[in-house]
Order: sequence, then structure tokens, then C-alpha cells
Amino acid sequence: MKKDLISMEDLTVDEIKAYIELAHRVEATPPERLVKKLPGKIMAALFFEPSTRTRLSFESAMHRLGGSVIGFAEQSATSVSKGESFVDTIYTVENYCDIMVIRHPGEGTARLAAQTTDLPVINAGDGSNQHPTQTLLDLYTIEKDLGKIADITVAFVGDLKYSRTVHSLIRALMKFGVSEYYLVAPESLRLPGYFKMSDQPEKFKFYETNHLEEVIAKCDVLYMTRIQRERFPDLLEYEKVKDSYRLTAAMLEGARPHLRVLHPLPRVNEIAYDVDKTRYAGYFPQARNGVIMRQAILLKHLGVEL
Amino acid sequence: MKKDLISMEDLTVDEIKAYIELAHRVEATPPERLVKKLPGKIMAALFFEPSTRTRLSFESAMHRLGGSVIGFAEQSATSVSKGESFVDTIYTVENYCDIMVIRHPGEGTARLAAQTTDLPVINAGDGSNQHPTQTLLDLYTIEKDLGKIADITVAFVGDLKYSRTVHSLIRALMKFGVSEYYLVAPESLRLPGYFKMSDQPEKFKFYETNHLEEVIAKCDVLYMTRIQRERFPDLLEYEKVKDSYRLTAAMLEGARPHLRVLHPLPRVNEIAYDVDKTRYAGYFPQARNGVIMRQAILLKHLGVEL
Amino acid sequence: MKKDLISMEDLTVDEIKAYIELAHRVEATPPERLVKKLPGKIMAALFFEPSTRTRLSFESAMHRLGGSVIGFAEQSATSVSKGESFVDTIYTVENYCDIMVIRHPGEGTARLAAQTTDLPVINAGDGSNQHPTQTLLDLYTIEKDLGKIADITVAFVGDLKYSRTVHSLIRALMKFGVSEYYLVAPESLRLPGYFKMSDQPEKFKFYETNHLEEVIAKCDVLYMTRIQRERFPDLLEYEKVKDSYRLTAAMLEGARPHLRVLHPLPRVNEIAYDVDKTRYAGYFPQARNGVIMRQAILLKHLGVEL
Repeated sequence: MKKDLISMEDLTVDEIKAYIELAHRVEATPPERLVKKLPGKIMAALFFEPSTRTRLSFESAMHRLGGSVIGFAEQSATSVSKGESFVDTIYTVENYCDIMVIRHPGEGTARLAAQTTDLPVINAGDGSNQHPTQTLLDLYTIEKDLGKIADITVAFVGDLKYSRTVHSLIRALMKFGVSEYYLVAPESLRLPGYFKMSDQPEKFKFYETNHLEEVIAKCDVLYMTRIQRERFPDLLEYEKVKDSYRLTAAMLEGARPHLRVLHPLPRVNEIAYDVDKTRYAGYFPQARNGVIMRQAILLKHLGVEL
Repeated sequence: MKKDLISMEDLTVDEIKAYIELAHRVEATPPERLVKKLPGKIMAALFFEPSTRTRLSFESAMHRLGGSVIGFAEQSATSVSKGESFVDTIYTVENYCDIMVIRHPGEGTARLAAQTTDLPVINAGDGSNQHPTQTLLDLYTIEKDLGKIADITVAFVGDLKYSRTVHSLIRALMKFGVSEYYLVAPESLRLPGYFKMSDQPEKFKFYETNHLEEVIAKCDVLYMTRIQRERFPDLLEYEKVKDSYRLTAAMLEGARPHLRVLHPLPRVNEIAYDVDKTRYAGYFPQARNGVIMRQAILLKHLGVEL
Repeated sequence: MKKDLISMEDLTVDEIKAYIELAHRVEATPPERLVKKLPGKIMAALFFEPSTRTRLSFESAMHRLGGSVIGFAEQSATSVSKGESFVDTIYTVENYCDIMVIRHPGEGTARLAAQTTDLPVINAGDGSNQHPTQTLLDLYTIEKDLGKIADITVAFVGDLKYSRTVHSLIRALMKFGVSEYYLVAPESLRLPGYFKMSDQPEKFKFYETNHLEEVIAKCDVLYMTRIQRERFPDLLEYEKVKDSYRLTAAMLEGARPHLRVLHPLPRVNEIAYDVDKTRYAGYFPQARNGVIMRQAILLKHLGVEL
């Protein structure tokens, strides 16, 4: 098994399936047994940039397993301000813990940490690069909700150009053989062309459109993302397009009965509140699955049997 | 039992007595038994505004019971800065914990949270509105120190116009039938008139004065509060009055032997340090009672028997 | 036994040896036994100024022993901003915990806290004054690495004028009878003269030099420290001297085989990275020893037998 979890690119389909299988077993295990798994173990949560949601999810996972947490929630309070190098921080903190969860704005930092220490390192987001635990929890959610990951049609909506989450999930789904993708994005935020240039061009089909309504009836998973105002050079342009990528309950009328609407959260207004109470809303359970998947990840990388 | 603890207004006298009774039992239980009550349970401390004292008190209570804590100490690090709504934060965090303790500058936010989640929500202060765990610990302190809550005379000193703590405690004492109140406040910071307009005007007596000395010999509880400079439009006015609402050891000479001086803390200078060593000083033990009462609250709302 | 750990000056050689002996026993005890020592105990980490390294080290030590941690990482979020006095903070927090670890920029604050509360207080650095747990972990490291503290030669390099760590360690080594010191510092950052004015001038020898190379072959411990730019009135002066106090792997060629290079960390550039992989590098294990020594300190001051 790999010591670290840095990038989805490092994982085979079988390795991904092993994480998902372990998450299922975590979910099936009574809390009073889970809490006996990691007493005395310490997770260092090193958040060099704030991400409350991811941090709390990891902390919850560790506490549910009976472990302890140390760390910091933002860079300001660290020795980095005294001129210390990132590598020295890792060399020091490895003396305080058993596993490190690292969030950092710089691409490649998690990998660097993993090469520095013999302890397991979990990447909780390194800039615009990778956030593998998000992708694993997305896959776990799809597998749990639909019963399978292959033979499904997935639509992605919003910022498909910059979203790390979208890129990582599409790549993973392609590994699993998912072949049909609907891509709903403004012209300037379309999925980069290299996604469509696989060595099996006949195998993967990407349908692009500006119209969210068109795809709703055709997909099993509708993966929504935020469109960030800052991505638009022109605010008028943003105001013009933003509502075209907004989902409302009324739009879901023709949806397949098992459709799941997912979102990495936080949402701003791209999913109307009236969607929350529909049968399709899967984004808050998705957050719960995040804790379960992270429990699986902690157990696996700490080498503790369930 | 109610799922949440949002406002003292929601509680009957019997319900308040049940909290106090449970706090007594917590205090009588050996630490090594208490610490076995909540292992594996997670309290989310969501402090949208800083309040170190209240936060540490709740965290101490949870740890004394063997539980774990996640959360944040101020809003800056939350997804709120990414535009997320308060309700979405609650929908997300409910996946990470078993009970939520919420401090927020906005009135009504704790109630909104309670209506959003099925988990128990404890209000740790919502703006100028309610801070029920403070009132419960005040009542527990009075009951413990004086042996009863009825048939006592209570003096309130300081900012009686804006103090959430004072308003909430007076209302609770009125429910318990406490009928005599001395109110010592500057003209501009007097208790709002509606407190005196009960449906039983003959039952409750409010004596107002500017002179702290006058009331000391007449009361069983002397509840002191800070007078905040910012409340005065005119700094000169503040300088003129502030010392009239300051308690010193010398002033306590004619006090009843069982008099308790209480204060929600932090104090600035409204209680002179020489009072600390007198038999009357009850404000630091009051802080200890806060941990005990919050242990009782956590147990009750998590549905765990003592 | 003393209730508190405030200053190395308070400790006899025998008391220091007892800490070291206990640290050895902590290190020899299996983790699963250590974690049963302090469940239900609460350490308050009161960091009135940030020090991530020291804070995480103490938190790790407490968690390894099964205890819990509450506290704050910087002053901004405390009631101090509401005008509360330091003493009142201590009187309040003593109700929330079993032991206090205090870091504060003001000299004498830890002592003041110790006099205020009946709980044990551990000084984690009070301004430029004392940081005794650093000195104890330095002594533990020396004893562990060299097998003894007496009869050794120690070189100190860098800022010998202002470094609290250096002053405290030299004083402790003198108590242990260490008699030969090499001092390598720029003119303006030399060790204060009063160190050399002992009542046994023939007993202690201080050799001063500007040349790091000269001392490497002569010592058993090479204790490096940061030279802070801010100490120099003239930036040019700083640029001129800084590289003279920088250690590289090449410079270590003639070193004694058992030489240990130590550093309180964080380092900036005074130890070249190529030193890290040499047999002499002792500064990261030193950080690990910090957790072990702090476990010993927590056990001893909480009165819990190992």
C-alpha cells in the first residue's frame, strides 16, 4: 500500500475500490467499536490556508475513531513567519504526530511533505492541483447512491475550466469507464481541451452545451459547482451568464427518478434552496460521506485494521 | 424534553429545576465516572464571534465527560467568507458532530440553527438576545450558595439597560417568585420599563437608586455588571458616574453574612480586587459552576443518563 | 516537589536529574500504557503570543498521555481585549482545567500566574526571560546523546547576547559542572559579561571567537542559534557577519565522531541543509525529545505516577 494519499493520479481503479469498500465497512461499524480504533494516535491538521469544512471533516473523522488532533487553521500563527522553510516544519511536526493532513496554497507541497517524512501524508488540497479525498468521497457517494460507478452518465455544471474538483472527478470516472459526459459551462469556463484527447477517442463522449435544462433528463449524476465572479474579466459578462448555470426545483421535473444532484460545497446560489427538499438533493449527505471516507483513509494509512 | 436550549423563555420552572438538579448530580459524581459518559461524541463549538471564556467553559465540560470538540473560534476562517449561508453551514456541520454550541452576533441565529438541524443546538449567545447557559449557571450558583431561589432579595448593579445577562436572570427569578429587586444604575442605563409592567404589579417590587451603598445591607445577592464606556454618548458623563457603580471591600461591612457577590465576568474595574478575598466573592466559583451546569446541559441534550 | 515549573533558576541539580530520569522512563514506556495516564485531565494552553512549535509539542505530549487540551493560540481572541486583567484570566481559567501552560510576551507573567492559582503552572516562555521546558529538553538531549552532562565541551554559536535559550542552558550546564565553553558570536551579540563573573573564576572557562571553524573539532555539542536581522542597527553589518555563523557539512569534517549539532529551531539559514543528513545533526531528534520531556513534566506536575 502507498504510504501517502497525494493525488488521484497515483491510484489504480483497484486501489480506489479498496478505499470505497473500506468506507462501506466503516459505515456499517457501530460507533462504539470505531472509537476504539485510534486512541493515542495523533493527526496533525496543518492548514496553511483556511478551509473550515475540510478541516472539521477530518477532525470529526479522527475523533470518531478515538484519535486526537493537533494543528493550526491558518498560516499566520506558524513559524513560517519566522522564516522557517516548509520542509523544516514537516521535519519538526513529524515528531508530534502519527499522520499529517496538509492543506497548502502551493501546488506540489503535499508531495514534498510526503517525500520529507516517513509518516503518512494526506493531501487536503494543494492549490489548484489535487484534493484527492474530495474525489474519493464523491466516488463513494455515487457508488452508494447509484449502486455502481460504471455505465452512468454524468453532467458537470459551472466552472469546468478551473475546478480542481471537476477535473479530478472526471479523470477518476474515466478510469472507471464512465463514457458519457455532459458539460454545461459558459464559453470562457469550458473544460480544457486535453480532457477530450484520450487515446480512445471513440470511447469517451463529451457533449458541451450552455443550457442546463437540456441535460437534466439525460443524466444520473448532476455535479454542480460554483462560478466565481473573479474568473470573469468583465462583471457584466458574469451577471449575464450566472443564472444559466443555476438549478431550481422546477427544472428537475423531467429528471430520472434516481438522479443525484451533487456539489462539493460551499454553494452560493447555483442551487436554489427549493432543491434541498427534493429527492434529488445529494449534496449534504455527500458531506456526511466525507467523514466516512476520511475515517477509511485514516485507518488505511495508519495501518489499522477495522 | 426539548431538543434545544435556545432561550430561557422556552423553559418552565420545572424544566429549569431539572437542569439545576442534574448539575448537582454532576458535581457529586466522581471525575472518573463522568469521563466515561461521552466518549466518541463530538461537540461542534461554532463561535461566529470570539468568546474565549464561554468557549473554554463548554470545551472543558465536554472533555470532562470524555467527549471531543471540533469547531472554530471566530468567523474569519469559515466558509461564510466564501458567500455560504448560515443555514448551509448548519446543514454541513450537522454531518460532523452530535451537538452544536453556537455563538453568533445575530439575534435569532441559534433558533434558526435549531430549526435547521435535527441535532440538539445550544445557544451560547446570539447577539443582545439570549445566553441561556449563563442564566442557568447563575441560578445554579444562587441555589447552591443560598440553598434556595425563592424568597431572596437581589440587587443588580451597572448596565441594566443593555445587559442580556441581567434581563434574562431577572425574568427567570420572576418565574421563581423572587419579588424584591434593587436596581442600581445610572439614569441612562436603567432597566427597561416593561420589566415593571407585569400582570401582578403588586407581586414584584423594583427599587431604583443611584447609590450602591444603600442596597448592600438589604440583599442576598449582589449581581454586578460592567458599564461599557461605549454606551455613553459623552465620555465626561461616563467618567462622572463610573465610580458610583464600583464595589470595594470596605463597602461590604454591613452586608448580610450570607451575601453573594456575583458577576458574569470579565470584570474591568467594577469590583475592586480587595473584594476577591472577602467571604462574599462568588464570581470565580460562579465560573466553576458554569462548567458543571454545561456538563449537565450536554448530558441532557445528548440524552445520556448520568 | 514544586507545584510549578517557572524558571531553571528554581531547580537544583537533583531536581533537574529527576526530570531527565522521568523522561527516560516515559521514552521506555509503551504508548498504549502512556495513553492511560491522564484521561479526563485537561491542560489549558494559554498562548498570549503565537508559538506553534511549542504549543503543538505540549499538545502532543498531553494527547499521548490520554489527556485533553483547551486554550487559545494568540491573544487576539481573549477577554484581555475586553479589558480583563491577566490575573482574572487565570482565576477564571483555573476552573476549566487541571494544569496551565502559559506563553506570554511579558517577563514574570508565568510566575504571577503560579502565585495566583493553586493549579500547577508551566512556563512556556515569558518574553526574554525564561523557557525552562526548552532547557530541560536540551539537557535531556545532551544526556541521551552523549551519555552524560558533566565533562563535556559545549560551543554556542550565533546570538549569545539576547538568546534566552542560550543563557538558560549555559546556567544549567554550569550547575552540572560543565567547565569549558566556546562562544562564537559577532562582536555586538556576545554573551553578557556577568556569565563569566562566577565565584569560581578558575572553574569555568569561556573562549570567545568570531570563527566557527576553529571550535568545531574541540567540542562535544555545537549549539547553534538564529541571528536575527532586527538585532543589528545596520543592515550592512548584518550582511557582513551572518555567513560567519553558518554551519555547512564540509565544515564538520574534523569534528569529533560523537559531536551533536543542536538548535532550538526554527532555523533560517544558520545550518545548511546538507548538515541534516550527517551523523551530527541532532536538532530534529531534539524536537522529538521535547515531546518526551513535556510528557514527563505534565506527569510530574499533575502528580501522576508512571
